[in-house]
Amino acid sequence: MPIPAPNLYPDFNTIRLSHVCLNVSDLATSRKFYTDILGLQVSDESDSHIYLRAMEERGHHCVILQKSDQPGTVEVMGFKTFDEDDLDKAETYFRSKGRPTSWVERPYQGRTLLTSDNMGIPLEFYHKMDRLEPIHQKYALYRGVKPLRIDHFNCFSSNVDDSVAFYSDFGFRVTEYTEDDESKRLWAAWMHRKGGVHDMAFTNGKGPRMHHVAFWVPTPLNIIDLLDLMSTTGYVDNIERGPGRHGISNAFFLYILDPDGHRIEIYCSDYQTVDPDLEPIKWDLKDPQRQTLWGAAAPRSWFEHGTEFVGAEVKDSDLAATPIIAP
Amino acid sequence: MPIPAPNLYPDFNTIRLSHVCLNVSDLATSRKFYTDILGLQVSDESDSHIYLRAMEERGHHCVILQKSDQPGTVEVMGFKTFDEDDLDKAETYFRSKGRPTSWVERPYQGRTLLTSDNMGIPLEFYHKMDRLEPIHQKYALYRGVKPLRIDHFNCFSSNVDDSVAFYSDFGFRVTEYTEDDESKRLWAAWMHRKGGVHDMAFTNGKGPRMHHVAFWVPTPLNIIDLLDLMSTTGYVDNIERGPGRHGISNAFFLYILDPDGHRIEIYCSDYQTVDPDLEPIKWDLKDPQRQTLWGAAAPRSWFEHGTEFVGAEVKDSDLAATPIIAP
Amino acid sequence: MPIPAPNLYPDFNTIRLSHVCLNVSDLATSRKFYTDILGLQVSDESDSHIYLRAMEERGHHCVILQKSDQPGTVEVMGFKTFDEDDLDKAETYFRSKGRPTSWVERPYQGRTLLTSDNMGIPLEFYHKMDRLEPIHQKYALYRGVKPLRIDHFNCFSSNVDDSVAFYSDFGFRVTEYTEDDESKRLWAAWMHRKGGVHDMAFTNGKGPRMHHVAFWVPTPLNIIDLLDLMSTTGYVDNIERGPGRHGISNAFFLYILDPDGHRIEIYCSDYQTVDPDLEPIKWDLKDPQRQTLWGAAAPRSWFEHGTEFVGAEVKDSDLAATPIIAP
Amino acid sequence: MPIPAPNLYPDFNTIRLSHVCLNVSDLATSRKFYTDILGLQVSDESDSHIYLRAMEERGHHCVILQKSDQPGTVEVMGFKTFDEDDLDKAETYFRSKGRPTSWVERPYQGRTLLTSDNMGIPLEFYHKMDRLEPIHQKYALYRGVKPLRIDHFNCFSSNVDDSVAFYSDFGFRVTEYTEDDESKRLWAAWMHRKGGVHDMAFTNGKGPRMHHVAFWVPTPLNIIDLLDLMSTTGYVDNIERGPGRHGISNAFFLYILDPDGHRIEIYCSDYQTVDPDLEPIKWDLKDPQRQTLWGAAAPRSWFEHGTEFVGAEVKDSDLAATPIIAP
Ligand SMILES: [Ca+2]
Ligand SMILES: [Fe+2]
Ligand SMILES: [Fe+2]
Ligand SMILES: [Fe+2]
Ligand SMILES: [Fe+2]
Repeated sequence: MPIPAPNLYPDFNTIRLSHVCLNVSDLATSRKFYTDILGLQVSDESDSHIYLRAMEERGHHCVILQKSDQPGTVEVMGFKTFDEDDLDKAETYFRSKGRPTSWVERPYQGRTLLTSDNMGIPLEFYHKMDRLEPIHQKYALYRGVKPLRIDHFNCFSSNVDDSVAFYSDFGFRVTEYTEDDESKRLWAAWMHRKGGVHDMAFTNGKGPRMHHVAFWVPTPLNIIDLLDLMSTTGYVDNIERGPGRHGISNAFFLYILDPDGHRIEIYCSDYQTVDPDLEPIKWDLKDPQRQTLWGAAAPRSWFEHGTEFVGAEVKDSDLAATPIIAP
Repeated sequence: MPIPAPNLYPDFNTIRLSHVCLNVSDLATSRKFYTDILGLQVSDESDSHIYLRAMEERGHHCVILQKSDQPGTVEVMGFKTFDEDDLDKAETYFRSKGRPTSWVERPYQGRTLLTSDNMGIPLEFYHKMDRLEPIHQKYALYRGVKPLRIDHFNCFSSNVDDSVAFYSDFGFRVTEYTEDDESKRLWAAWMHRKGGVHDMAFTNGKGPRMHHVAFWVPTPLNIIDLLDLMSTTGYVDNIERGPGRHGISNAFFLYILDPDGHRIEIYCSDYQTVDPDLEPIKWDLKDPQRQTLWGAAAPRSWFEHGTEFVGAEVKDSDLAATPIIAP
Repeated sequence: MPIPAPNLYPDFNTIRLSHVCLNVSDLATSRKFYTDILGLQVSDESDSHIYLRAMEERGHHCVILQKSDQPGTVEVMGFKTFDEDDLDKAETYFRSKGRPTSWVERPYQGRTLLTSDNMGIPLEFYHKMDRLEPIHQKYALYRGVKPLRIDHFNCFSSNVDDSVAFYSDFGFRVTEYTEDDESKRLWAAWMHRKGGVHDMAFTNGKGPRMHHVAFWVPTPLNIIDLLDLMSTTGYVDNIERGPGRHGISNAFFLYILDPDGHRIEIYCSDYQTVDPDLEPIKWDLKDPQRQTLWGAAAPRSWFEHGTEFVGAEVKDSDLAATPIIAP
Repeated sequence: MPIPAPNLYPDFNTIRLSHVCLNVSDLATSRKFYTDILGLQVSDESDSHIYLRAMEERGHHCVILQKSDQPGTVEVMGFKTFDEDDLDKAETYFRSKGRPTSWVERPYQGRTLLTSDNMGIPLEFYHKMDRLEPIHQKYALYRGVKPLRIDHFNCFSSNVDDSVAFYSDFGFRVTEYTEDDESKRLWAAWMHRKGGVHDMAFTNGKGPRMHHVAFWVPTPLNIIDLLDLMSTTGYVDNIERGPGRHGISNAFFLYILDPDGHRIEIYCSDYQTVDPDLEPIKWDLKDPQRQTLWGAAAPRSWFEHGTEFVGAEVKDSDLAATPIIAP
C-alpha cells in the first residue's frame, strides 16, 4: 500500500496554494500572453516584475512574472497559512526536517518564510497578502480564457514516494494516485489542502522541475474559446495537449506553453474533497484512460519537458516504468 | 457593524452540510421527481424511506425522503464533523448553549448527535457515514439536471442577527450579507464551512422554516436542460424563479418546488472562500441587483413560502423592512 | 383555416432578410451599444451613418445606424434577392399590388428597389452588396454577445391575416402561428425564406411598427455572458425580457432595448425549415408555454412598445384578443 | 482556377441530403449504438431494417440500418427534391449524363428515382416521405449526443475535380475547397444545397467510398457529453478523432466509428451559405490549420479508412499529394 495515511492534525495549517514566481526573458511578451490570452489582471508592474491575479481572487497576486537572465526557470511556489502563528510553527517544522529556512521580504505580502521541500523545490509561506477590491462581477474586465483562480501546481519528482511522504507529513491529503503495477511504487499522486482534487501533484521524472501551474475556469466552453483565440492570434504552436477529460480528477483540461516554456494548464470541473475520510482513487499506470478518459495519449513532450527551479539540482528518476505515450 | 468577527477556532470542527430529511406524502411521486428530474441516485429504499445521493458524493445520502403524515415539513438538517471527537465536543457545546441534545440511531450513519439551533431548527451531526463506490465517471447514470453534490441550506429566520450570531459562534463564517439600511439590522446572510459561499444561509421572515436546499450542477446549460425537461414532462408549474445570476454569490440559479412544496435550488459557479481573512461583501436590501444581477425581482411566493421544521414553533419576524418584489 | 398555402413559385426570388436602417439620436452612444455590447463590427462610418456587420457575414452591412431628428424610428428593412433579374420582377410585382416603387441609391449596394408592404412598412430589395473579407475565424475580434448574423425581423401588424397573405404571395412560408381561438383569426405568424423559422414575423398590435430585429449567436451561454456584461456596465435597464426558451420556434432568446428604444432579440437554436412540405405548427393564444416554454409570461411593455417606420401611418388593431401578460 | 462557377439554375431542384442506408451485421448491436450513443429515435423496425430520425426531423428517416451479409458497406445516399416534377427532370438529367436510372419502391417514401453519380455512388431522389409528429420539444426523449438533424455526407473520390464538376452541374455550390499547390488540382471540396457549408463533400483517396455521414448537434458541450458517455460505456475504441474545431467550415467536430466501421461525424456551428454570390474559401493542402484550426493533425486511419458502396468499383486516386498526418 503506497499511500500514507493522511495527517489530519499537521504541525501547521496550510490553507491553499497561493502563487508562483516565474522567471521570464521579456516582460512585454509575457504580459501579452498572460493578459490577452490567459486573461489575468495586472495588480502592479515595474521594470522588473508584473503581479497578476485571476478574476475571483482578492489576494494581490497569484502569478509574479520576474524579468530574469534565467528565463524558463521557477523562482518559488507560494502557499497561504491559516494564521500568522502557523508561520512560526512552519519554521520550526521545516527546521526539524533539516530544511533551510529564512524570513524574506516580499512586496504585498506580510511575514514570509522561505524554505524548500525534500527535493529542493523552493517554497514560501505567508499568512497576510494585500487584499484588493472584488472584481468577479466586473464582467467588462473578463478576457481570454476568463480565469477565476489559481488551482494547483504539478511537479516532476525523481522519487514520488518520497515527495508524497514529505507533503503528507504536513497535512497534504492524497485524492488520487497512479501506481506502477510491477514495482508497487508511486508513479504520480494528487494531494490537496483546500478541498479540491489537488493543490500539489507529483509526476515521476527528472526532478524537481515544475510540470505545470493550473488555473480554474468556469466551463469547458471557455477552453474551446481559448483554443479558437490562440489558433488565430499567433499562438497555435503554444498548444501542447488537449482539450480532454482527465481520467484522474475527472477535470476538463488543456495544456499550453507560455513564451518561456512554462507549462500552464487550464482546468475545470473536478470534485469536492473536504471529507477527511475521502478514499484515494488508485489508477494503474497502464490504464489508457488514466491520462485522458477519452483514450488519447499525451505527447512525449508532456512527459519530458518541465521548467527547473532556481537553485534546485535536478536528478533522474530511478523508477523506469513507462507511461503510454502518443506515437 | 452587524457582522460578527469569524470564530476561527470554534469548539468543534464542522466540515460541511451533509443531508436533509424531507417529509413527503407519496414516495413514488417524490421518487419520480428526485430521480428523473433532479437526477439523484437511489442508495437504498424501503416502504418508508428513500435515500439519495448526488453524482460525485461517496457518502450514502444527501437527501432522505420520509413518508409522513406531515408532508411538506422538514425532519432534520445534517452536518458532518471533521472527526469522531468533534461529536462529543459538539454535545458539550450545544448543552452549554441550553440546547437539547441526544444521541440518535440513523441508518448508514455512525454516532449521531441530535440537537437544534437557537430558533429550533433540528440539526444532527455525525462523523461517519457509509461510503459508496465512486459513480462520478459512470456517465450512463447521469440524468435530469446532473447534480454533483448538495451545496447549501437556506432558512427563514425571524431574527437573522441572532441566527448569524449563533452559527458564527461555532465557526460558520459570513461571506456576504444584506443589511437593512434604516435599522442597520441583517436582512439576510450567507455562511460557510466548506470553502464555498455557504453551507447555510438565513433570510428574514416567518421562521424558522426551510427556504430551500441547493444542489450543485456542472454548468448553466444543465439548468437550461432542466427547464426544457420540466416544461415538457408535466412540471412547468413547479418552476418558481429563474434562471438567473445571483448578485449575491455570483452563482447561476434556478428555484423549483418538489411535489410537497419543498423548494430546491439548482446552483453553480460561486467562488472559493477558504481564506480566513476573506472580507464579507455587503449588499443593500434596496439594491435591485442583489437578488438577480440582471435586475429581475423575485416573485412574492419566494419571500413568503417555506416548509416548516417538525417540532419547531414558527414566529413572525419583527424586522419590517421589505425587499423588492415582482409586481 | 387561417394559414394560406405556401406559394412555392413566387414571382421573384427573395433569399433572405439582409439589413435594417435604424434612426438614432446620437451615433457615439449607439456605436458603443452596438459594438461593445452587441459586438457588431464597423464596416464603415461617417458623421451621419455607421455600417455594421456580424461575425460570419460577408455582405457589407446588416445594420445601418443613421443620425436622425426622428430617433427611435426605422428607416427601412432590406432583403437580398437571388439574382439581379429578380429586382425587375419585384418592381413589376409590387406595382401590380398597387405599392409605390422607386430605384434608390444606397452606398455599398447595387441597384436597389424601394417599395413598401400592404401596411406601409418600407422595404428595399437588392441583389448585390459589397462583399468583405471573412472574419469569422478572427477570434480576437469577437466581442459582446458574439453575433454571427442577422436572423429575422418581427413587426406589429394591425391585421396579421392581411400581412401574412401579403408576404405569402411573394413566397414567404409560414412555419408557426398563433390563432385566436374565438375569432379564428391570426394573432401572430412566423414566415421564412432562408430555411430557418423566420425572416419576418408579425404580431397583433398597433401597427405597422417594428417589434424587434434579431441576431443569431452560437449558444445560450453567449446570452448569459451578455446579461452579465450588460448588468455590470450600466445597461441593466436595457434588459427587457428573458432569458428563456420560446415555445414557438424552440429558440433560446433574450430581448434588450438599444439607447433609442429599438428592441433587439438575441436568438439561437431554432430549426431547419427548407422542406417545402413543412407543416406549420399551430399554437393557441392562451397557451402559457407559447411565449416561453418554461411558463414565464412576457411583460406588458413587450406587447405594447415598438418603433415606428418613417412615413408609415400607425393604426390600432381590430383584433381584441389578449395574450397572457405578466402581472 | 479549379472551382467551377455555380450553376444557379440547375435542371432540377434538390433541396437537401435526406438519408443514408447502411449495411450492418447485427441489428441489435447497431440499434444500441444508434439510439443510446447517437440518440436517434426509432421510427420503425423489423427483422431486417431499423428506420431512425433525429430530434428536429419530421421526415420518417435519416438513417436506415439494413441487416446484410455485406456489413460495413453503404447501400444508397438519399436526397429530397423541391417538387414532385423535379424527380422526372432528374431522371431526364441523369440519363443525359449516361447514368443508369430506375424507379424503386422504398417504404415510407413516395416515387423514388435510383441512379448513381459519375463515380458510381448510388443516389436516390424522392420528393415525398411520410411525415411524423414533431418531437423537438419532447425533451424527455433526448438521449446520447442529442442529434438534431442529418447534416452532410463526405465521400472519398479518386478524382475530386471530376466529382465536383458532376455535382456542380446539377446545382451543388462549393463553399470551401483544398487545392494541391503543385498540381493545382482539388484535394477536397465542400458543396451545399440547403444553405449550410455542405450537403456533400469529397476527399481525395481510393474511391468511391463513404468517408462519413454527419449529424448536427446543439452545442460543443453535447459532444463533450458524448465523449464522456462513450468512454465509460465500452465505446472508447470507437472514438477516432477530435474533439476539435475545423479550419474548413469552422465547425466543432468529433469523428466516431459505428460497430461496422461506418464513420459518423458529430458536428455543430458552421455558417449560413444561402447567398448565391458566396465566395468559396480556398485552403492549401499543407496548411496545418486546414484540418483542425487548433493545429492537431488527423490520424492515418482518417485518411485511409472508408466504407464501400454496394456495387461501386473502387479505384486508387491518381493525385499523389499528401496531407499532414499525425505521427
Ligand atoms: Ca494558415
Ligand atoms: Fe494539473
Ligand atoms: Fe441558495
Ligand atoms: Fe424574434
Ligand atoms: Fe464532415
